[in-house]
Amino acid sequence: MPGKNVKIAIIGFGTIGTGVAKIILKNADHIYHKTSLKLELSHVVDIDVTRQRPVELPGGILHNSLDKVLADKEVEIAVELIGGTTIAYDVVTKLLSAGKHVVTANKALLAERGGEIYPIARKYNRCVAFEASCCGGIPIITALRTGLAANRIEAIYGIVNGTCNYILSEMFSQGKEYATALKEAQSAGFAESDPTLDVDGTDSAHKLAILAMLAFGRQINYPDIAVKGIDEVELADIEYGKEMGYVMKLLAIAEMTNERGDSEAISLRVHPAFISSEEPLAKVSGPFNGVSIFGDAVGHSLYYGRGAGMMPTASAVVADIIEVASGNSQRLFSATPGLGCEGRRGAICPIEEVRSRFYLRLFAVDKPGVFAQIARILGDKQISISACLQHESVRADSVPVVIMTHLARQGDMEQALLELNKLETIKAKPICIHVVTPPDDEA
Amino acid sequence: MPGKNVKIAIIGFGTIGTGVAKIILKNADHIYHKTSLKLELSHVVDIDVTRQRPVELPGGILHNSLDKVLADKEVEIAVELIGGTTIAYDVVTKLLSAGKHVVTANKALLAERGGEIYPIARKYNRCVAFEASCCGGIPIITALRTGLAANRIEAIYGIVNGTCNYILSEMFSQGKEYATALKEAQSAGFAESDPTLDVDGTDSAHKLAILAMLAFGRQINYPDIAVKGIDEVELADIEYGKEMGYVMKLLAIAEMTNERGDSEAISLRVHPAFISSEEPLAKVSGPFNGVSIFGDAVGHSLYYGRGAGMMPTASAVVADIIEVASGNSQRLFSATPGLGCEGRRGAICPIEEVRSRFYLRLFAVDKPGVFAQIARILGDKQISISACLQHESVRADSVPVVIMTHLARQGDMEQALLELNKLETIKAKPICIHVVTPPDDEA
Repeated sequence: MPGKNVKIAIIGFGTIGTGVAKIILKNADHIYHKTSLKLELSHVVDIDVTRQRPVELPGGILHNSLDKVLADKEVEIAVELIGGTTIAYDVVTKLLSAGKHVVTANKALLAERGGEIYPIARKYNRCVAFEASCCGGIPIITALRTGLAANRIEAIYGIVNGTCNYILSEMFSQGKEYATALKEAQSAGFAESDPTLDVDGTDSAHKLAILAMLAFGRQINYPDIAVKGIDEVELADIEYGKEMGYVMKLLAIAEMTNERGDSEAISLRVHPAFISSEEPLAKVSGPFNGVSIFGDAVGHSLYYGRGAGMMPTASAVVADIIEVASGNSQRLFSATPGLGCEGRRGAICPIEEVRSRFYLRLFAVDKPGVFAQIARILGDKQISISACLQHESVRADSVPVVIMTHLARQGDMEQALLELNKLETIKAKPICIHVVTPPDDEA
Repeated sequence: MPGKNVKIAIIGFGTIGTGVAKIILKNADHIYHKTSLKLELSHVVDIDVTRQRPVELPGGILHNSLDKVLADKEVEIAVELIGGTTIAYDVVTKLLSAGKHVVTANKALLAERGGEIYPIARKYNRCVAFEASCCGGIPIITALRTGLAANRIEAIYGIVNGTCNYILSEMFSQGKEYATALKEAQSAGFAESDPTLDVDGTDSAHKLAILAMLAFGRQINYPDIAVKGIDEVELADIEYGKEMGYVMKLLAIAEMTNERGDSEAISLRVHPAFISSEEPLAKVSGPFNGVSIFGDAVGHSLYYGRGAGMMPTASAVVADIIEVASGNSQRLFSATPGLGCEGRRGAICPIEEVRSRFYLRLFAVDKPGVFAQIARILGDKQISISACLQHESVRADSVPVVIMTHLARQGDMEQALLELNKLETIKAKPICIHVVTPPDDEA
């Protein structure tokens, strides 16, 4: 069958841009064989046109003029790989206005300013494709929108940040302190020189906003996500958890809940959590990502792979280019609530209303009656203890007491923590970590 | 945006047909909200129109006349859920000839007679969609064709039969004998009353033929797949393997290989294999399926979920209905070599040329010089020993000797086995099992 030529512009010639160019140059024939699409790199735009990158571009296509791309009527698809939410916003809106479909890996831009961008795409009858924005090479967007389209999605539990997962895995398996594991993640190239957005949970929350929008067919207001990072995680808690059969992961969770009693609401949260070491997600370690999706028909399905890096992310970008060129992305975009057509905003379950099990570590004075005090404060808030662990003291004046609770309302736990903190017999700020059980797979 | 009405016929009202009807009736509004497609069940055809199924159909749509479906011009999509390769073949070709797109879960039909069916679909400008044919609810077909489209696929390592995985998992974790585990799989509903096609590897080979065709963009001749099932697996070997850090899985493997030296050839095989208990695939247990795909850009990605059962399989069928109704399936079908357009047949790497590590268990007479005999036979065939385990004797006359080898040519190992079997000092037919290391993820 006759092939279709697809002219592409890459805006932003950094790591991912280099990977995209590599794939298009190396696999163009292969992609043509499988899809009948001839991908052709027409422009690569960057402010730096002199630095050497590990790919050899055809002569004349590298330049620093976005205007040349905007003016080139033959360019159908532009790939935004600048990053950030300001210049990238201007570039994306200019590209859409000039009639280009946009492929992007920019999760921050879509999570924080998608609500501004999608109407512009609609206005110009163009689409925005973003498989690469979540979990690098794992085709999680495709799975949610296509493979699982028949399902009501009930929950997503994801390990979506490779930096954090690498750090937590090293702490868990090698007994390294947080600071050491972070430094190693930086040397190994898994963490940025400024890792703040990774370790404080922001990056995971950006991805969660995008996944939840697709899963539930609702507009998601990014600030509705409750976010806690791993930057205060202590090795001691990982080790106590391990002793009790748990692994700590930074989880991004979106789930339909009826906790408020009245109607369906979406719970959206990113936080460190203990999960049973028997859970499939517990086995996702090192820099890998893993996302569990629970649907009413499919039950539990899990997607695993490299969530970052030059080639895995470029794999997702080029998959999107193919989908846009074939017309499928545009169809999906126009039909998706919150993207190409108006979507209603989902009701949000406030974080205080979330029910979870909890892990508590308290430094309590080692004398009679103290445990009774703790148990009474928890009991008064309807928080029931499921397990308890007390080791020999590491401080002269106090002993660490580790408590696992049954399901409790998060707001009640927060109240209990305030009261525990006021006790004279509690010698340091209590540590409280979620203990999470993904939904049963009853398929 | 205005919705599109999609009239659907289900042919075959068994377990999966019931699940498909359930999803369409229960989730139609939800699917409309997410896709702007109004799915409508127009016909459900079965020879048995009286048996109660756990779904309530709208009045008048259940009947036993395929001709009514063929004559109904409003039916755009027909779902074949009869199974088998004879009646199903007639039904599918009639449906295509009558201008219906066909959605099917029938892996046997596509693996064995796809080469006859696809040209008929092409002739009538219709498509065949088959997400449900491999791994139930896991959107593995979508991942291969869409999410990973930018990649040259290098290898697929899959656990694609839930019955076998359940049996092997029970043997491994509970120390059950094969026959006991099989019986339990039958009581639990994971195995058919006649489980032959599952345990002898046929079902896995059917799925592998389909996955390999999509992965490599080549026509696959089903008989080219070397197949060995789990029906001769003994508990003793699972336990020796466990002791050495390995888990036994029934693996379906398709990989591009250069073993023949001259050019690329595809190795296609289904057999029990030991994999390191640290491999992500090793953690796929019970009735679940898991498929590792290795691409040149994405590296290692893995897809996990329920590979069978009413609702997971129906989830995939309805996903296909949505893809066909939206036009995307037809586009993919026409562009896919071996399906909608002519594909060349891939060169096959003969099983003797496959290089693998091997696990050997021999019952050897317990006297001096015997191990030297064994080692010499292996050494003469360039097979090098990497580990060895000898336990106390369980037979009066001989001791079990377990040997792990380094990489060896399968043909050489087969020759060595013939020679070992001839030794008077070897008292039973040697057991030989592949030891498999999935490719490195160098992404």
